[in-house]
Amino acid sequence: MTYEKPSVTVDCVVFDDRGRLLLIRRRNPPFAGQFALPGGFVDPGETTEAAARRELAEETGLQARDLRLVGVYSKPGRDPRGWTISIAYLVTTEEGAPQAGDDAAEVEFRSDWRELPLAFDHSEIVRDAVTMRAD
Amino acid sequence: MTYEKPSVTVDCVVFDDRGRLLLIRRRNPPFAGQFALPGGFVDPGETTEAAARRELAEETGLQARDLRLVGVYSKPGRDPRGWTISIAYLVTTEEGAPQAGDDAAEVEFRSDWRELPLAFDHSEIVRDAVTMRAD
Repeated sequence: MTYEKPSVTVDCVVFDDRGRLLLIRRRNPPFAGQFALPGGFVDPGETTEAAARRELAEETGLQARDLRLVGVYSKPGRDPRGWTISIAYLVTTEEGAPQAGDDAAEVEFRSDWRELPLAFDHSEIVRDAVTMRAD
Repeated sequence: MTYEKPSVTVDCVVFDDRGRLLLIRRRNPPFAGQFALPGGFVDPGETTEAAARRELAEETGLQARDLRLVGVYSKPGRDPRGWTISIAYLVTTEEGAPQAGDDAAEVEFRSDWRELPLAFDHSEIVRDAVTMRAD
């Protein structure tokens, strides 16, 4: 018996010490041009934690230090490309200025993140991460 | 560009009020005949939480009440069938005696769970869930 399989992605919630949120502007569809959390597809042979570290480095140049699991996001329809489950981490990083790479057209720590519409269900992920930080 | 996709499963950690752990004895390979947590593959169109509730009901007859995310388990090689990522939940259930169904040959709350070798990385999942309960 074969099962249909989902795509699995990781998303990284990174705040700097001034409470700004690291956001990329997406280069590619879906949501091209919109702000989003850094992240991407998990590769075969890597853990989801390793995928989060790799995607963060590829898209922002920042090196992850600690990862805390925020949640698993799997609502049907959350990704227009099809069935996609995302694992979100709250990530602390090494010092340094972010630099856009890979799928990110721009990347920066934004202080106005509360007002920005984010791609996918990333606003929900950020809300959950903020609740977790407050614990 | 197409990506290779993982299978995604859910696993349920359920303790009764006497601290016994709900375990099934697996009917099918891999690990046929071994003890394991109730769980199974996530279906298209359902959330991972819904999958956990469904699998628990199918395999044990118990209805899930609350779910708390324990972790995401994605170490390469953790499932001999291939690339499989599991989402584990600590679950409270409605009252009732478990009854084996579906992939489970037997199901029961076991007080000797600390001494039993469990299938896959389920011992690691249980350890993490126990740490979480103690918080």
